[in-house]
Amino acid sequence: MQASWIAVDWGTSNLRAWAMGTDGILAHGSSDKGMGALKPDQFEAALLDVVAPWLGNRTLVLACGMVGARQGWVEARYRSVPCTPTDPAALMRVQTQDPRLDVRIAPGLSQAKPADVMRGEETQLAGALALYPGFDGVFCLPGTHSKWVHISAGEVVSFQTFMTGEMFALLSTQSVLRHSLTAEGWDDAEFGAGLSDALSRPERIAARLFSLRAEGLLHGMTAPQARARLSGLLIGIELAGAKPYWLGQSVKLIGATKLSALYARALALQGLQAESLDATACTLAGLSALHAQLKD
Amino acid sequence: MQASWIAVDWGTSNLRAWAMGTDGILAHGSSDKGMGALKPDQFEAALLDVVAPWLGNRTLVLACGMVGARQGWVEARYRSVPCTPTDPAALMRVQTQDPRLDVRIAPGLSQAKPADVMRGEETQLAGALALYPGFDGVFCLPGTHSKWVHISAGEVVSFQTFMTGEMFALLSTQSVLRHSLTAEGWDDAEFGAGLSDALSRPERIAARLFSLRAEGLLHGMTAPQARARLSGLLIGIELAGAKPYWLGQSVKLIGATKLSALYARALALQGLQAESLDATACTLAGLSALHAQLKD
Repeated sequence: MQASWIAVDWGTSNLRAWAMGTDGILAHGSSDKGMGALKPDQFEAALLDVVAPWLGNRTLVLACGMVGARQGWVEARYRSVPCTPTDPAALMRVQTQDPRLDVRIAPGLSQAKPADVMRGEETQLAGALALYPGFDGVFCLPGTHSKWVHISAGEVVSFQTFMTGEMFALLSTQSVLRHSLTAEGWDDAEFGAGLSDALSRPERIAARLFSLRAEGLLHGMTAPQARARLSGLLIGIELAGAKPYWLGQSVKLIGATKLSALYARALALQGLQAESLDATACTLAGLSALHAQLKD
Repeated sequence: MQASWIAVDWGTSNLRAWAMGTDGILAHGSSDKGMGALKPDQFEAALLDVVAPWLGNRTLVLACGMVGARQGWVEARYRSVPCTPTDPAALMRVQTQDPRLDVRIAPGLSQAKPADVMRGEETQLAGALALYPGFDGVFCLPGTHSKWVHISAGEVVSFQTFMTGEMFALLSTQSVLRHSLTAEGWDDAEFGAGLSDALSRPERIAARLFSLRAEGLLHGMTAPQARARLSGLLIGIELAGAKPYWLGQSVKLIGATKLSALYARALALQGLQAESLDATACTLAGLSALHAQLKD
């Protein structure tokens, strides 16, 4: 089975690849050889491990994500906003040993002030715009580093990144709060309480975090309650900071199903209905749009 | 050399002990056997490792800190504020195998709403009040979990804990920001900029944190600059949340020298002069005051 081209989403912790035919996906493969685990001369072998069965004489491989970072395979320099999310002319070609590979990496986007960067999300944005041509408004991409992106006339006008997901992971597994939380379990009321607390008094965030520990010790707050409250506090302070992005705006979410549902609920509590798009579908749509532009 | 009594500061990560004579400190010892590394039946041996050379027939050992936590040697239940920082009648006696030991643990303090707890700091507060009898105002105890404490008529009226030190440690060594920071180095201007940024726009904290990474990638912000800015942002959001504690108040700092100097500088930038007391001196003064009360 030979692919007409190959789509690759290559992040810090893993690599996912799709063999694409004229009618869509032919096959899917993945590995845990993310950019974070590889030296520059190890990327080609890591890619071949997954895509070799799909190669013809010379096959186009379109990749996005941290593979194009300074510490990645080859640096694909950021494009500066305002600009379209992706541009076929800006793809970075990679020299490979194997002549069957024609690898090109999509660059990320940068913003000078407030200083900000993205890598991988620009391709999801391009895919979302391919799915909703002419959309003007805001995309929210929840995750380790959540992004809020203002789109107008097909261009990224501005964006802002929040360390919400990474803070949740660090606080719930590495900090003193780990004694008060569980890995699973949930409580909707506590999520709402944390959200409202952080939105109304964002300056108290560092004190409200420690209160989770004290609430467990003194008032028997359960571990699932503490986990939901922590999530509410952190998403709440994100929404407080991102208010100019969502207040009175048309917002669509791009992310993993469960996390997007949480953000949709948080926004609904502020009176805003936000549709959710699947992140992987957006990535594939974005790479496919790039592929179609290359053929034009 | 025999101690007339022994002072012990026993925290999560280490144990420090002082042999006390009628004229003050006779000897000092310490070990890394903190409460976090010990099971209940291992505390006595860990204590003897350090204090055995100082024991007479029966020697009073006054201890404070996490040794009295639920996961410690014996739980010394929190006393509820408002109350004096310490109370000789509330010391928790510990049953020991060795008849030479007469161990008593000072309990921490709790506050019902907003839920909060302290263990160890109450003894520093008692010491500070012994050094400044009649002080009415606010103590700030910067550290892993910084505390702000309102004192009136010799009692702790209210207090609030901020996870500032722990967040700095996690973000600077475990998060994506570790690539942008150094363990050492400093920049006063960036500290002031981060402080002012967080104080004026506390809701943007999660975005301002990620900006440190982007400033390094895009604008060549140096690692010492990023470290100072991170410190300024985190102390700034603490000052924003603790404003009712310091605005127009008389504030004294109790902490390690370098960290207290940073908080003093941050408060000075808000127009407030805060004197600094040494944390260890306060702990010893607090345990000595308890000892004097026991003899009365």
